[in-house]
Amino acid sequence: MLPIITLSTDCGLSDGYVSVMKGVILRIAPDARIVDLTHTIAPQNVQEAAILLDRAAPYFPEGTIHLVLVDPGAETPRRPIAALIGTQRFLGPDNGFLTLLLRRAQRAGWPTEILHLDQPRFWRQDLNRVFHGRDVFAPVAAHLAAGTFFTAVGSPITDPVLLPLTGPTKTATGLKGEIRHIDRFGNLATNIDADDLAALGEVRVSAGGAETRGLVKTFGERPPGELIARVSSHGELMLAVVNGNAAEKLKAKVGDPVEVLRA
Amino acid sequence: MLPIITLSTDCGLSDGYVSVMKGVILRIAPDARIVDLTHTIAPQNVQEAAILLDRAAPYFPEGTIHLVLVDPGAETPRRPIAALIGTQRFLGPDNGFLTLLLRRAQRAGWPTEILHLDQPRFWRQDLNRVFHGRDVFAPVAAHLAAGTFFTAVGSPITDPVLLPLTGPTKTATGLKGEIRHIDRFGNLATNIDADDLAALGEVRVSAGGAETRGLVKTFGERPPGELIARVSSHGELMLAVVNGNAAEKLKAKVGDPVEVLRA
Amino acid sequence: MLPIITLSTDCGLSDGYVSVMKGVILRIAPDARIVDLTHTIAPQNVQEAAILLDRAAPYFPEGTIHLVLVDPGAETPRRPIAALIGTQRFLGPDNGFLTLLLRRAQRAGWPTEILHLDQPRFWRQDLNRVFHGRDVFAPVAAHLAAGTFFTAVGSPITDPVLLPLTGPTKTATGLKGEIRHIDRFGNLATNIDADDLAALGEVRVSAGGAETRGLVKTFGERPPGELIARVSSHGELMLAVVNGNAAEKLKAKVGDPVEVLRA
Repeated sequence: MLPIITLSTDCGLSDGYVSVMKGVILRIAPDARIVDLTHTIAPQNVQEAAILLDRAAPYFPEGTIHLVLVDPGAETPRRPIAALIGTQRFLGPDNGFLTLLLRRAQRAGWPTEILHLDQPRFWRQDLNRVFHGRDVFAPVAAHLAAGTFFTAVGSPITDPVLLPLTGPTKTATGLKGEIRHIDRFGNLATNIDADDLAALGEVRVSAGGAETRGLVKTFGERPPGELIARVSSHGELMLAVVNGNAAEKLKAKVGDPVEVLRA
Repeated sequence: MLPIITLSTDCGLSDGYVSVMKGVILRIAPDARIVDLTHTIAPQNVQEAAILLDRAAPYFPEGTIHLVLVDPGAETPRRPIAALIGTQRFLGPDNGFLTLLLRRAQRAGWPTEILHLDQPRFWRQDLNRVFHGRDVFAPVAAHLAAGTFFTAVGSPITDPVLLPLTGPTKTATGLKGEIRHIDRFGNLATNIDADDLAALGEVRVSAGGAETRGLVKTFGERPPGELIARVSSHGELMLAVVNGNAAEKLKAKVGDPVEVLRA
Repeated sequence: MLPIITLSTDCGLSDGYVSVMKGVILRIAPDARIVDLTHTIAPQNVQEAAILLDRAAPYFPEGTIHLVLVDPGAETPRRPIAALIGTQRFLGPDNGFLTLLLRRAQRAGWPTEILHLDQPRFWRQDLNRVFHGRDVFAPVAAHLAAGTFFTAVGSPITDPVLLPLTGPTKTATGLKGEIRHIDRFGNLATNIDADDLAALGEVRVSAGGAETRGLVKTFGERPPGELIARVSSHGELMLAVVNGNAAEKLKAKVGDPVEVLRA
């Protein structure tokens, strides 16, 4: 079985940034299997990367290596890090991309170890012009895939950057959360989990001046064009419009408030 | 030789839907080779999926497994199905995505078997929040890749949903068809096949108020900017503009009428 | 170790052109590993293909096969070619896509051999409707991956088409170059290399009516919103805006002049 390296970036595929990373990986670990997760994260949007990674990684096999690169153009002085979370490994700049996965690990009791990548012997050697994706993350990912021990590639740290991605707050009448992700279909994912809702019983959900009563299981329960609330396949409260686009209908954007009220 | 699983969806890659499917597949069948066909099918456009699949599948090796997911957001009650057509296998919601391939199979005399996927032991077990792509199609595709017999994953059906994708109609003066697909270059593919044209001899083709005389073999035969008609590499009548964009020039959209007249 | 075939096209993934090429490759070389570089090259923009290939190819392993298809829709009479450059192989229409790589090979003293693909026994046999990507390049790439000798697939030529991609010109006060590529982040890559700059000492760089003094090493050296010039990770002079989009700020497009002046 060949090792799997997934790639998630904000680089697009039109400029060659991802291509060179693939080349570097395959030169060091010719048998690695590269799986594109996404290269269309909005430029510099670390929150989006954190959400996508938290959604996808748990479904991957043990041993998978996830390379997550947001904002490569900036080449900021952020330290490059790697994390072992459960049985999987993660690489990227220390910008908060692990925030949600680390929280998930804490809840689940998974072992976690984070390293500062400070061992240049695993990097590309021609480093007078640095692109961390190509020169640090790709070669380290490939070396891990080829069998290098995780602990060899860096030094332990305990203070990774974390994003202020909080859950909803309790109010007298229910919960106050926010829109966290808008998908291709215009569905609005929130930061409110199924668990948060469990205690509330029957609810109303409001956002963008509109309101819907009750949670539905499937779209078919309501007529086309109606705003609905449901628990998504990812386990979070989601607002949608039957056969429609909730983001357009509510003129919603990420960060907009969502309120859940006891009915 | 590792089994091949192709993915064709309307999910995009920005929201994690496809990523989790890839993870689920690789967990069950670590050696499966996943080939992205497209993830930019227009949301809920089953006709587009049917056309793309009919074009691409015949070129793939024997034994290939094609997972075709359009409109996952809807999570409609459509039954999940699998089909064995010739030597290849296909999975997706019963929404008509096989319409053109089944017609091709009938013409070619390929053996065909269609199953309702009703064997939950091949699905993901955590099914209180269902996303069929992740929970049914990805695991069944992976089990098939790993060697599970096709007939084990479901029960035979004979009434799959079919789209009303008809061929052209004969008229007193020739044929009346329609635009079926518009590609990235603005070329207009029609539902009129080379075979349909064979009987007509010399023709004129009109669409969107414009007309072109005769079929060309290559673009080079006419001057830049001129509307041309030709048999495309896929074998259907195609309208194009030399060094230009026919869709823009004719303000054409899928479904618009195309007429072929004896010259 | 499985052979690697990379794909770079202007076909997009929405129309099935790339899908059929993947199918054809996997039928002939079931163990080939297909790596998508990009399918969003601007339609018919050979210069963009030449730039991306020149950036990415040098990072790939020995023996990699690169298939580069721009403007398949045109199906022009351009002869199909293959090139051996150093240890890697390249296939595509003879439209200039190798211009920069051949120049790089000349500077580096890499052995180079170019063939006209004129051996139909390595092509798809059903050739009454030709799509070179599917019918010539994909099968020849697959045969090369499967072990066919490079020299067997065509006849040597010495006159490949070359694009007029020149370097900067020297002026009394410095260098005059142009913008060659604009990336997803709005950074402006030029045709001026680090080597060109070496002789000039301290410089000013101007483009689009704006000017910046000195070259920076990292974005962090200047305040947000400021235009900067630096040597990019690819080794060329690049204009950027700290935390911003230089292309938008300067209303820049590919081909616009860039001037470097001794400070």
